[in-house]
Amino acid sequence: MPHITPNDLMNAALDIGAAAEPTALKHFRSDLAVEDKPDESPVTIADRETEKRIRAELADRFPDHGIFGEEYGRQETDSEFTWIIDPIDGTKSFICGVPLFGMLIGVLEAGEPVAGVIRMPALGESYAGCRGGGANLSGAAIGCRQITKADDARIFVNEANQLVTEEPQRLARLMGMGHIFRFFTDCYSYALLAAGKIDAVVEMGLQPYDYLPVAPVIEAAGGIVTDWQGERLGLHSDGTIIAAATPELHAAILAQLR
Amino acid sequence: MPHITPNDLMNAALDIGAAAEPTALKHFRSDLAVEDKPDESPVTIADRETEKRIRAELADRFPDHGIFGEEYGRQETDSEFTWIIDPIDGTKSFICGVPLFGMLIGVLEAGEPVAGVIRMPALGESYAGCRGGGANLSGAAIGCRQITKADDARIFVNEANQLVTEEPQRLARLMGMGHIFRFFTDCYSYALLAAGKIDAVVEMGLQPYDYLPVAPVIEAAGGIVTDWQGERLGLHSDGTIIAAATPELHAAILAQLR
Repeated sequence: MPHITPNDLMNAALDIGAAAEPTALKHFRSDLAVEDKPDESPVTIADRETEKRIRAELADRFPDHGIFGEEYGRQETDSEFTWIIDPIDGTKSFICGVPLFGMLIGVLEAGEPVAGVIRMPALGESYAGCRGGGANLSGAAIGCRQITKADDARIFVNEANQLVTEEPQRLARLMGMGHIFRFFTDCYSYALLAAGKIDAVVEMGLQPYDYLPVAPVIEAAGGIVTDWQGERLGLHSDGTIIAAATPELHAAILAQLR
Repeated sequence: MPHITPNDLMNAALDIGAAAEPTALKHFRSDLAVEDKPDESPVTIADRETEKRIRAELADRFPDHGIFGEEYGRQETDSEFTWIIDPIDGTKSFICGVPLFGMLIGVLEAGEPVAGVIRMPALGESYAGCRGGGANLSGAAIGCRQITKADDARIFVNEANQLVTEEPQRLARLMGMGHIFRFFTDCYSYALLAAGKIDAVVEMGLQPYDYLPVAPVIEAAGGIVTDWQGERLGLHSDGTIIAAATPELHAAILAQLR
């Protein structure tokens, strides 16, 4: 097999997402059974069917690669490549009829995120990026804004109710920042950052399948994404995220969170 | 002139919204000058152009009616009808490229909200309702879910950063409620309530042009909307909102906020 580049992986992730999208959309705003996971987060039939569809595509295209998906866990192999799947990021949005749920597909090479896709099935938008290449929105080049000062920045905090409960002091410091400061949800914040519509995203409590597919999109768009200690993201990060358009803005937010 | 019914007013609001929608969409995700209002909320060229377009339609159709719009204020007349306009509800969403901004057009008859439309230009959805008629989503009948217990409810709090700062104790009580509890934004929460996708919305700090056009949509869908004292909404309400699918759920939330 010829060498696979990050760009090849990104294009494959785009194709696989396109193949799986109808499965996710079929159940959106339909009345369907919703079961609760042990951790109480709602998950739909669509979640499981979509991940199965993505895994079937991967089995066809890259039978030797590893897979780590939200619904069906890890399938480890000897390959240096591991696919990271969140079939429906934002199940609360999905259940509540909000068209901001996403489908996340990323790839690790030797443990490092090198390609990723944030697909928004109900919006018809695909944000993609890979190491060594630029980021694109449905094929058109995108990039982060060159905002270096927090006072000029549009800052989104995702799932802020968790910060209200667990990190009220850090949240209070963040709330003094930004030209626009807003509570928001899920993967679309990271897509907007990569597209130059907002400038920073702060979040906690994420799982690897939430953050690993989005990291290459942000980095390919010129942005920076780390945990709250400023460390690069990997499979064993603690689920805290600072994503920012520029190193200066990243440092300013990091200083408030450390 | 023959008597105008709430249904006539709703249909006119739908037509006027359709006429003004291209004006709002033209500037969405374009790079345009953004100026700050004295109160710091961002407002776009689109806001002003869209309201002008709506006012021009009203001048043609109902030259004797009063108008109260976000951008150009009140135009009082002797008519018993007053149109309430928020050309772009969710200017932060609009500026940040989030397709959840809305266009709100409502009508008061003798000071009471009797017809309203929540139009979502970037989503292609129009939620409408009027006194004595049902609610509809782009023509198809919709209605609130029959959820009476808070534990079964999907509860959204809009612009929760304001509650974090100004009403932390009330927010803490709310955060214990709901099967799904989520921070969200702007008029789309009320549309989702009317469409039976969520069951309650809590918010503070609204202006009459934010809440008066949505009230008839919620009520026509079978829901209840009041301020935090349980009083019906009017031009002089204090900008606090509880909207709920059923009287029981409304009472349960009201008890936490009083």
